[in-house]
Amino acid sequence: MAPGTLKESTCPVARTADLVGDKWSLLIIRDAFDGIRRFGQFQSSLGVAKNILSARLRALVAAGLMRVEPASDGSSYQEYVLTGKGEDLFDLIIGMRQWGQAHTFEPGEPQTILVNSATGDPVPHLTYTTPGGRPVHASETRVLKPGDPQRGSA
Amino acid sequence: MAPGTLKESTCPVARTADLVGDKWSLLIIRDAFDGIRRFGQFQSSLGVAKNILSARLRALVAAGLMRVEPASDGSSYQEYVLTGKGEDLFDLIIGMRQWGQAHTFEPGEPQTILVNSATGDPVPHLTYTTPGGRPVHASETRVLKPGDPQRGSA
Repeated sequence: MAPGTLKESTCPVARTADLVGDKWSLLIIRDAFDGIRRFGQFQSSLGVAKNILSARLRALVAAGLMRVEPASDGSSYQEYVLTGKGEDLFDLIIGMRQWGQAHTFEPGEPQTILVNSATGDPVPHLTYTTPGGRPVHASETRVLKPGDPQRGSA
Repeated sequence: MAPGTLKESTCPVARTADLVGDKWSLLIIRDAFDGIRRFGQFQSSLGVAKNILSARLRALVAAGLMRVEPASDGSSYQEYVLTGKGEDLFDLIIGMRQWGQAHTFEPGEPQTILVNSATGDPVPHLTYTTPGGRPVHASETRVLKPGDPQRGSA
């Protein structure tokens, strides 16, 4: 697969990586979930160079993950807001949060936590489950490519 | 937050982004879940420049997400295998796969699918649920930072 062709890959993971497989894009999306909306706010939060932030926001808007709105307070600022497609990245951010909690902190080290807005209670560890409520482990799965003989035969 | 300090952030999402917030790292991990183990196999799968692939594999090993093993067939090749910490990224790859399926393909466009290895049946859409089986939506959550007054008060 040539680097430019991720967007044409038959693999959904590759197409997602093409759009958001970049730490700044991922952290812009994280910040948007936290209610950050303005360029200057993203810049303070991320400490990233303005030209990089500007390019990433432009790409997220072009890909339909964010949209530009007039400022909610009537000022002349533009605001960047997640679209429905962008909001659907919540699972991806949860996956990053839960992995980071498990594997990148020493015991007792201060960290941000996700809480229920209404009650303030920490959101418990979330598990991916089937509609029947069963978790799925990597070891019991494999990937079928288009044209693989097993496809649709089971 | 200065670019170099993601690894010291109190945000687990930022620390994860620091380690795997890169499309090639994410796709190496995807490939490792698919059973790819050798440098040349990763290179054919990804079509990425050898120096980039080499740097990404080295970083994944240094971060403890992959380990280097002698070739399983007794040849002189090295193999790259996910550690337990790396295998815990399965949720992240699932999140990318499910988002990509929902938002980056036209109807009917060929795509790879995740199936149960034993039965060949497609893995159904997975939902993040609490231990009680309840899904959680972004709109009902917020992030508390260390020191925020609401922390632990509910």
